Amino acid sequence: MARPAYVAIDWGTTSFRLWLVGDDGSVLGERRSGEGMTTAATTGFASVLASHLEAVSAPSGLPVIVCGMAGAKQGWVEAGYLDVPSPLSAIPSAAVKVPDATADIRILPGLARRDAAHPDVMRGEETQLLGAVDGLTGKALVCMPGTHSKWVEVADGSVTRFSTYMTGELFHAIGRHTILSHSIADAQAFDGTNAAFRQAVTDAIRNPALATNLLFGVRSGMLLHGIAATDAKARLSGILIGLEIAGALDEAPPGTPVTLVASGALGALYESALDTAGVEPVVIDADTAVRAGLAVAARTIWPG
Amino acid sequence: MARPAYVAIDWGTTSFRLWLVGDDGSVLGERRSGEGMTTAATTGFASVLASHLEAVSAPSGLPVIVCGMAGAKQGWVEAGYLDVPSPLSAIPSAAVKVPDATADIRILPGLARRDAAHPDVMRGEETQLLGAVDGLTGKALVCMPGTHSKWVEVADGSVTRFSTYMTGELFHAIGRHTILSHSIADAQAFDGTNAAFRQAVTDAIRNPALATNLLFGVRSGMLLHGIAATDAKARLSGILIGLEIAGALDEAPPGTPVTLVASGALGALYESALDTAGVEPVVIDADTAVRAGLAVAARTIWPG
Repeated sequence: MARPAYVAIDWGTTSFRLWLVGDDGSVLGERRSGEGMTTAATTGFASVLASHLEAVSAPSGLPVIVCGMAGAKQGWVEAGYLDVPSPLSAIPSAAVKVPDATADIRILPGLARRDAAHPDVMRGEETQLLGAVDGLTGKALVCMPGTHSKWVEVADGSVTRFSTYMTGELFHAIGRHTILSHSIADAQAFDGTNAAFRQAVTDAIRNPALATNLLFGVRSGMLLHGIAATDAKARLSGILIGLEIAGALDEAPPGTPVTLVASGALGALYESALDTAGVEPVVIDADTAVRAGLAVAARTIWPG
Repeated sequence: MARPAYVAIDWGTTSFRLWLVGDDGSVLGERRSGEGMTTAATTGFASVLASHLEAVSAPSGLPVIVCGMAGAKQGWVEAGYLDVPSPLSAIPSAAVKVPDATADIRILPGLARRDAAHPDVMRGEETQLLGAVDGLTGKALVCMPGTHSKWVEVADGSVTRFSTYMTGELFHAIGRHTILSHSIADAQAFDGTNAAFRQAVTDAIRNPALATNLLFGVRSGMLLHGIAATDAKARLSGILIGLEIAGALDEAPPGTPVTLVASGALGALYESALDTAGVEPVVIDADTAVRAGLAVAARTIWPG
């Protein structure tokens, strides 16, 4: 049986995920909680960590590798940014050590694009990338959908450029805090096979400048044509995802291969949206990617 | 001295404006309040109207002409829609009479674009148009900025097509309910001379597909380049207005003359934004336009 080698943590804004990893790479224990940066900034990062280490019976003094918002300015210890272009292999050695801790705890840095006309930042996704790019050669676009979707241009193991789209956050803000909230109030779950979703993706890609008009069309369509609430919600999602895809594909040479790093329903939705755009992505599970990235970092920092 | 001839009302979602108009067209009394449709649907439209009529000492039985959300399904009496294309002169005769009222009260209809791929509605703006198009010949684009900005194609007194952009509502929803709320929390007032506003308009027009990436750039720009809160807010506004202008100008033949129906600070902001797009609009005051439109309707319905 494997012996505990290190602890890997993905510490986001509102989520905390921990894996106890064995010396053969196997997962010996796992924890998921809502104690993200926002909570931990109040209750204390060290005590949140300690409670989860105890819950998985981690031997004391085990090294801990952390990615995500724990390294933000408002987080535990600020881990700064690596400026792009940068090789992903430079990430582990730029990790910041948590001072005065009872174990060797390292927090990985984010990435920054300092281009004055297109400033951008990521924190957490760089570790997914580190785990996902193994085997990617040449130039590729990596799509990492979510609250703040990232589209990353990777060339031979280096990040050359990336852009964030506020898709997920806009979906929630518009769905909850505009007139469209009435149109989607009674919506059921939908997926990428929904025809209204696919049509909306197509519409937004064809005419991205009409995006906020297409959004109002969700309401007009309900008033004039009785669009069902579920289709209205699917359409809201499709407009925003289509707009994102239009922008991301615009920025890359036609035919650039796309890797989609995502999980579950959101991943399936993006696969469908990309399909309407004629793109067939390589799909990598996001959870697997972040664990693989943390493993690469751990192996680099603690080669023993 | 002029004698009271009729009462004109612009009854919006959240605002109520009433003018007591004399037989020579002069304004004999005016009321403004927050008792829009939302409030009046609870307190009663008839009693809200009665209290304001009393406040301007309107003679009892004076005819009343109303435009706006009072004619919506959730309003006082549903006044339906005229389908476009439609001559604006058809609006007055499509007014709906409030039943069982102590006076002749008419509510003007909205306009609907039933095009299945681009459904759209307006209610209230058609009356501004009726007042604004006097003297417009040939084809023109009329821009009516606001919570739901309207861009209307008018040809020889007829509305041929129109599109709504959710610009104003998105500005508030994004500014209050996304991560950008932190970036703009300390913003001061800004106007169309703000360089960040004008740059954002230019950026969005140049690359509308990047709209939600430009939005995230407001935050990244603050993190990486220390953009001031006021410039961040100006940039948020400029991205959304620029996106709207990009879409609206895309839909019309190049060089189509633009009429801007707007008032105050918002009008000045749109004048500046249109200027960055190389468009010099004819400007008509929105308050004047709605009163003129209600006057045209009153003269048509009650020619005596």
